[in-house]
Amino acid sequence: MNRIFRTEPLTAPAFAPFGEVLEATGSPDRLINQGLCGRFHDRAVLDFGPETLPAGRAGISLFHAEPRSLPYRLELVERHPEGSQAFLPMTQHPFLVIVTEHPEAKPRAFLTNGAQGINLRRGTWHGVLTPLAAPGLFAVVDRIGTSPNLEEHWFDSPWLVVSGAGQA
Amino acid sequence: MNRIFRTEPLTAPAFAPFGEVLEATGSPDRLINQGLCGRFHDRAVLDFGPETLPAGRAGISLFHAEPRSLPYRLELVERHPEGSQAFLPMTQHPFLVIVTEHPEAKPRAFLTNGAQGINLRRGTWHGVLTPLAAPGLFAVVDRIGTSPNLEEHWFDSPWLVVSGAGQA
Repeated sequence: MNRIFRTEPLTAPAFAPFGEVLEATGSPDRLINQGLCGRFHDRAVLDFGPETLPAGRAGISLFHAEPRSLPYRLELVERHPEGSQAFLPMTQHPFLVIVTEHPEAKPRAFLTNGAQGINLRRGTWHGVLTPLAAPGLFAVVDRIGTSPNLEEHWFDSPWLVVSGAGQA
Repeated sequence: MNRIFRTEPLTAPAFAPFGEVLEATGSPDRLINQGLCGRFHDRAVLDFGPETLPAGRAGISLFHAEPRSLPYRLELVERHPEGSQAFLPMTQHPFLVIVTEHPEAKPRAFLTNGAQGINLRRGTWHGVLTPLAAPGLFAVVDRIGTSPNLEEHWFDSPWLVVSGAGQA
């Protein structure tokens, strides 16, 4: 049994195969409100099909998830074939973002820095929402529609996610 | 000079004329992830026109705003005629939501409880983003489009927002 992988810091380049990191870093695209607010404009690739008809649309939901801890046992990944899905933390607590290019590949576990959201590209395999502290409160921008939009893959043998060097 | 009004707690019924309060209260609409996550489903009325063509679309931006303090001098309100605008705090700090039914009416200033976002209905007059603590970091879901989408109204005489009874 050697199905173990380590957390790594979340960065935009490392996460690029899976989607976008949503963060207010670097120079804002615009200064608004008499210069008192920076706008980092249109940072997520929202994609709600239509893969099948009827077409979906964007919606905002709230997710309230139980906190997990490391080491974390990863038993399944899931994906949404019909739409992108953005997770916007409503706290400054880091959370874990588990993704994989396909279910047979070794997954990756990105640890946010407490000021990052993410947007998963449509169809990206990912772990369920895994906050590491209470309250696990997130705003989620994903597809609202009537067609099936969830596939799950359960691993024959679970993975174990352990803390990367120098990380919490 | 008596242009003063007080903050009040943000509640869904009180805010209903202006839009939706986005919060994970009451029973979730669905339990997902083996019962470990509550989904409060599709809580915002997103509306991106088309008031004019070309039509807009939803986008996610990040806003990083300077914190303000009470008493707060309110010099202007603004509105977006082409689209709704949701503010999703990425911290647990309360922030101030100033709205008014029309620029000649007495404004209202709602204070969030630290676990609430809001969605402003298309065309709602509102104050600029006013966090009360650093970092004033928000995810914003609003209209991405090419047509003009900002109107400002400057008050001849500014308003002063003061803390409501029993509030910070």
